[in-house]
Amino acid sequence: MAEAPSLTHFDAEGRAATVDVGGKAETQRQAIARGRVVMEPATLARIVEGQMAKGDVLAVARLAGIMAAKRTADLIPLCHPLMLTKVAVNLTPTLPDAVEIEATVALTGRTGVEMEALTAVTVAALTVYDMCKAIDRGMRIEAVRLSHKSGGKSGIYEAE
Amino acid sequence: MAEAPSLTHFDAEGRAATVDVGGKAETQRQAIARGRVVMEPATLARIVEGQMAKGDVLAVARLAGIMAAKRTADLIPLCHPLMLTKVAVNLTPTLPDAVEIEATVALTGRTGVEMEALTAVTVAALTVYDMCKAIDRGMRIEAVRLSHKSGGKSGIYEAE
Amino acid sequence: MAEAPSLTHFDAEGRAATVDVGGKAETQRQAIARGRVVMEPATLARIVEGQMAKGDVLAVARLAGIMAAKRTADLIPLCHPLMLTKVAVNLTPTLPDAVEIEATVALTGRTGVEMEALTAVTVAALTVYDMCKAIDRGMRIEAVRLSHKSGGKSGIYEAE
Amino acid sequence: MAEAPSLTHFDAEGRAATVDVGGKAETQRQAIARGRVVMEPATLARIVEGQMAKGDVLAVARLAGIMAAKRTADLIPLCHPLMLTKVAVNLTPTLPDAVEIEATVALTGRTGVEMEALTAVTVAALTVYDMCKAIDRGMRIEAVRLSHKSGGKSGIYEAE
Amino acid sequence: MAEAPSLTHFDAEGRAATVDVGGKAETQRQAIARGRVVMEPATLARIVEGQMAKGDVLAVARLAGIMAAKRTADLIPLCHPLMLTKVAVNLTPTLPDAVEIEATVALTGRTGVEMEALTAVTVAALTVYDMCKAIDRGMRIEAVRLSHKSGGKSGIYEAE
Amino acid sequence: MAEAPSLTHFDAEGRAATVDVGGKAETQRQAIARGRVVMEPATLARIVEGQMAKGDVLAVARLAGIMAAKRTADLIPLCHPLMLTKVAVNLTPTLPDAVEIEATVALTGRTGVEMEALTAVTVAALTVYDMCKAIDRGMRIEAVRLSHKSGGKSGIYEAE
Repeated sequence: MAEAPSLTHFDAEGRAATVDVGGKAETQRQAIARGRVVMEPATLARIVEGQMAKGDVLAVARLAGIMAAKRTADLIPLCHPLMLTKVAVNLTPTLPDAVEIEATVALTGRTGVEMEALTAVTVAALTVYDMCKAIDRGMRIEAVRLSHKSGGKSGIYEAE
Repeated sequence: MAEAPSLTHFDAEGRAATVDVGGKAETQRQAIARGRVVMEPATLARIVEGQMAKGDVLAVARLAGIMAAKRTADLIPLCHPLMLTKVAVNLTPTLPDAVEIEATVALTGRTGVEMEALTAVTVAALTVYDMCKAIDRGMRIEAVRLSHKSGGKSGIYEAE
Repeated sequence: MAEAPSLTHFDAEGRAATVDVGGKAETQRQAIARGRVVMEPATLARIVEGQMAKGDVLAVARLAGIMAAKRTADLIPLCHPLMLTKVAVNLTPTLPDAVEIEATVALTGRTGVEMEALTAVTVAALTVYDMCKAIDRGMRIEAVRLSHKSGGKSGIYEAE
Repeated sequence: MAEAPSLTHFDAEGRAATVDVGGKAETQRQAIARGRVVMEPATLARIVEGQMAKGDVLAVARLAGIMAAKRTADLIPLCHPLMLTKVAVNLTPTLPDAVEIEATVALTGRTGVEMEALTAVTVAALTVYDMCKAIDRGMRIEAVRLSHKSGGKSGIYEAE
Repeated sequence: MAEAPSLTHFDAEGRAATVDVGGKAETQRQAIARGRVVMEPATLARIVEGQMAKGDVLAVARLAGIMAAKRTADLIPLCHPLMLTKVAVNLTPTLPDAVEIEATVALTGRTGVEMEALTAVTVAALTVYDMCKAIDRGMRIEAVRLSHKSGGKSGIYEAE
Repeated sequence: MAEAPSLTHFDAEGRAATVDVGGKAETQRQAIARGRVVMEPATLARIVEGQMAKGDVLAVARLAGIMAAKRTADLIPLCHPLMLTKVAVNLTPTLPDAVEIEATVALTGRTGVEMEALTAVTVAALTVYDMCKAIDRGMRIEAVRLSHKSGGKSGIYEAE
């Protein structure tokens, strides 16, 4: 399988290492990731109710996602530590049974921020799970994916 | 909607707080969570090849998942810090296009470990994404859910 | 000054070390700490407005305080790592010009939790500062102190 | 209240997010924060004695403050991760009953470092409390405030 | 080589996992580790001078070692998070050219604390290196080893 | 002893502080550190066997070293937080009784990365110890030292 694209995080001997980004230019980079938590309609109703009155699950999950984006290099072994210039996470209740999550991360630097955006989405989703698990253990995190990426050498990526 | 079950992480005023587990008994608890990363068949082929020869994506992701389970209380705002007694994460290439992930976490303590198992699964999945993203940006994390839980007051939970 | 009480965090040679709590009994312990952020009345008005409508400074600060309590042993060099069973932080706008903060922390363990409560109060206060500093740089954190402590060998402490 | 200054950490919908500093210029920035721990005169005497002979509370607190400045983005939810170029913390015993604390933080970057300086002051103050609490539970942290700030678009700030 | 003792951190398939300590008894455990930093005699002279007058390298290194012991489970992938009951680190200038380091860690729990003691020694040694590297880049960390271990099923271990 | 070189991490009063690197130029910097774990020949045989078949101690240690390099500023009190552009760690079984470790770290920035390289080596060594300690408690970490440094004002350093 000589024609297989090589994985960037391994050297010629198959040893894991960070990618050396020292030679890359500092550019403005952005990534958007998306995902969703699927749940019982009654659970979603409870979340929406809390958002309007008291007990705002989505506000807690948003903060958890933002803070997690800043911890990405601690969690993902071969990610570079980065000085993010922007992190935003939005959670949207979507009838009848889901919370859609979108995270946007930006940076002026030498490497992309898609892992930061994906980490924000998953930790926000986990936090929704944590806060609702007493009433709905069957919730699932689905469709976590990169939605948009710009600013690197490889150009703009848009998921269809 | 007076009959709605109340969310455990908010007080009567709707203010977020950890659940007080001081009165709970210390019991042996276990949780298993599952999820999957869906990808191009060529990406999976590349992962399997690396596993056999060199460049073992799944070994890196397994460690990332184990280490993340220990960081759960740092990531999920209202989780209690816990002294886990066991963490195991397994990733299984599943033809034609997925890596199935399963995490098992155990504890002798006052609160369940489902969040630790779910965190291990999602961080392992994010690590697979990170290491393969240069060859497949369209990968998705799917079906992250609790599979089994035992040892708490609410008895055994098995996802169907 | 032979009669001076000795500081518990130094050995006979004056070298810093954690207190050895291995011989202490596991008891139910609780601590409450308090403090306040003093600001321009217009800043407080802005916070209260946000709390009712959108932009809830106090909800963000509450979460920051809860999460910081769990990080206390990372921050305070000679604090023991602890498995807190409860953390709650409340912030109360107090006319004309202050936000009062109270943190309650509980544990079944061998050492008290006053540092965790005090850390929660100060980080919540810092977060209020961070979110309002663009409109009021002169805010001050005042009167951070232990308010109540129970469960240890030394009995109950109540600040007058 | 349409004329109220808007809080920078919320978007138009009132959702918390980091401020986007991607468009800001990299400049040399500095901040100085101050605060104090007020205690029994006998406690201060004990600290001063230790400083001269053995058991140096202030040296431990200084290090704790320096290390905490580097952790600010982990603690304050909407702070950006920053590559500080300088952190210094000084603690001065002040008769009859206080330890004055001053932290200076500098950076060449896109956002100010006042939160890092304030975090250093408060964690240094908490560490003084921790190390002296066995002999004086009534200590209070007072007057934590920004003293000086320079290098940003808004010019130099000096607390009167 | 069927008779080789199996490594405890791998399952039958060779996959890394934490050891499951859930079935172990909670006992009082202690470990002592030792190591040394070897340097130019002039460097040691400078350290000793600082210790007596100002600029106490060893006090900074001691604190760094204590704090690192508490972070062991964050650093060593398969270590369990533990609630240490005691951490002490001592550094002794030893003529003509070394600083000897000893760390003692204790715990009432289900697993040993030798990794915490060894981590404290190495981080204290690294801190000595950091603070003296401007005057002596050739320093070496030598002879880091377990010196004593007690409290587990395997009985007392004493290095000769 | 007026001619003694001054330690860079203390001010004129002997108070610890980070070095102010704000005035230094951003240059490409690299450091390589080395060390070794010495063990029973049977332990090394077991490691080599695992590496070929299953249970790869060295792969786990390599990742632990890489991740630790990114945490250096959390561990070493006066280290600056840095945005590393490259981290690589290699572990080589060396007959009859040692694992040689080498870490290479690079950065475009204002301060050197020797502490990051040394931290990677020591944490990789500690991880080897952790994974083999059940079969060989007498392992020792030896000869941890800086091997190469380039890119700073002081020119290239090569250990003889």
